[in-house]
Amino acid sequence: MNARRSILAGLLGRGVGPSLTPELHEREAVRQGLRYVYKAVDLDDGQLDPDHLRELLGSAVELGFDGLNVTHPIKQAIVPLVDQVSPEVAAIGALNTIVVSDGRTFGHNSDVTGFTAAFRDGLPDVDLGEVLLLGAGGAGTAVAHALAALGVRRLLIADPDVQRVRTLVDSLRRTPHEVQLDPVVPHGVPLALAHVAGLVNASPVGMTGHPGTPVDTSGLRPDLWVADIVYRPLFTALLRDAHARGCRTLSGAGMAVHQAADTFELITGHPAHRDAMFGDFDELVAAETGGDRHTPEAPAPGPPTRK
Amino acid sequence: MNARRSILAGLLGRGVGPSLTPELHEREAVRQGLRYVYKAVDLDDGQLDPDHLRELLGSAVELGFDGLNVTHPIKQAIVPLVDQVSPEVAAIGALNTIVVSDGRTFGHNSDVTGFTAAFRDGLPDVDLGEVLLLGAGGAGTAVAHALAALGVRRLLIADPDVQRVRTLVDSLRRTPHEVQLDPVVPHGVPLALAHVAGLVNASPVGMTGHPGTPVDTSGLRPDLWVADIVYRPLFTALLRDAHARGCRTLSGAGMAVHQAADTFELITGHPAHRDAMFGDFDELVAAETGGDRHTPEAPAPGPPTRK
Repeated sequence: MNARRSILAGLLGRGVGPSLTPELHEREAVRQGLRYVYKAVDLDDGQLDPDHLRELLGSAVELGFDGLNVTHPIKQAIVPLVDQVSPEVAAIGALNTIVVSDGRTFGHNSDVTGFTAAFRDGLPDVDLGEVLLLGAGGAGTAVAHALAALGVRRLLIADPDVQRVRTLVDSLRRTPHEVQLDPVVPHGVPLALAHVAGLVNASPVGMTGHPGTPVDTSGLRPDLWVADIVYRPLFTALLRDAHARGCRTLSGAGMAVHQAADTFELITGHPAHRDAMFGDFDELVAAETGGDRHTPEAPAPGPPTRK
Repeated sequence: MNARRSILAGLLGRGVGPSLTPELHEREAVRQGLRYVYKAVDLDDGQLDPDHLRELLGSAVELGFDGLNVTHPIKQAIVPLVDQVSPEVAAIGALNTIVVSDGRTFGHNSDVTGFTAAFRDGLPDVDLGEVLLLGAGGAGTAVAHALAALGVRRLLIADPDVQRVRTLVDSLRRTPHEVQLDPVVPHGVPLALAHVAGLVNASPVGMTGHPGTPVDTSGLRPDLWVADIVYRPLFTALLRDAHARGCRTLSGAGMAVHQAADTFELITGHPAHRDAMFGDFDELVAAETGGDRHTPEAPAPGPPTRK
């Protein structure tokens, strides 16, 4: 009888209060005339144990949620709690999106698809021979799978936590991608940087609260492309230095917006207006920082308005 | 940072799929430019036990619900599960609305306020000396409390279940209302009907699936006013017969719309456009039945389009 079905989504994780994703989703829904609510659900430590997550996910299904984003620190812990997962989630062992359909839960990873789309947008024709990836955590793992699927032939992976690198390498070996994988110890990073075609930062260094650059930027050459997945701030010290040295760069905006758009499409079944979502993202970031802007086609260092 | 807070509500109960309330709420929210979703949560028998209800309510709070309607058969069972209740809920022992504020749950009963508003709209100046109430279940109890607050001096209560009548009488004795209460046994109904000023049907007789009239309508006098809280169909056999005999009548539309409006206001904090909600109700009922219409100011029997 009700001609219009309203759609309910949410984000589960710790410290999700400042996330831009709820506003990105809801603005897109308003644009499409959908009745849509996306709730940020901030979980404290007591809410993170698997039994509680199982109860919460079960209740979310009962209470009519059509989908959920899942973020740090439960992207791995939630995997065994869903009914079915995509091949990427199975390989990576982490998901960031759950779609509910007829009471069943399906896990997806739009971090992978989001980075892939952002990379195709911003660095469509760069050399994919050898790439150095900094950070083998949850984000780094999603990025590594995306890079392998994009056709990177040799991926060098640096993380101070050797076990994380090993886990990431194992996860990539479970995929059909033909990519050579080489762990890099921290003191080997400068040498690796000297011969790769591209650098991707998936470590937290450079984000608000983690100042600095993840590599010595005096080693950046103009023929190196540099991508950062950090988006707070949008123009990290790494990207600013890379830009100053003539490198092609890609900010974290693209991954943030494309993952939101991919999740929106998975949950609602409606194609997202990605250009408009980039506009919203620019506006929201500008509102946060008092002026910093991003244009997806041509990322450029922002004005030095940050603390 | 997010300038607009989206609002999430739901309806818990058995067989709530056909409820008009979600659509009434969401249409009002669209009118007000609110981001609002109201989900009908249909509970089966296995989901009705108190432990499960406690878990579900706790999860609803965690997942960001701002409020809930609660309906048959859990209006009583949910009372001990909320943090605080209104005086009406405390007296009646049943609630139909839960408002979530800062993680705490507050129980209200907008069936009472909804019937009161509907009565003031539709029968503002009728004789409140003696009123016969048919049905002492959950709805009957809410109506009885509303009638007592409206100033009825003597309330005669008929229900085949003597225990329900006793419980209802006890609940009214916990209020400050000065109303004389008289249980009526089934075979005493015709005699009672002969001398009361008004009749209210709060039994299911007359609703779709329960055909017939709750009293022998040959006993209806033109100076009797007759209210029915059934709204499917909107014009019950009782109301049609009463109208034909010259009685003033009140359909169940007013209570349905005013309780939805009251709950909307409690959950959102925004005044509801009640006239517009009546318009929506008319449209939704017409869409269900293929033409039946209601005007709150002048309820009139609809065309005989029902099965």
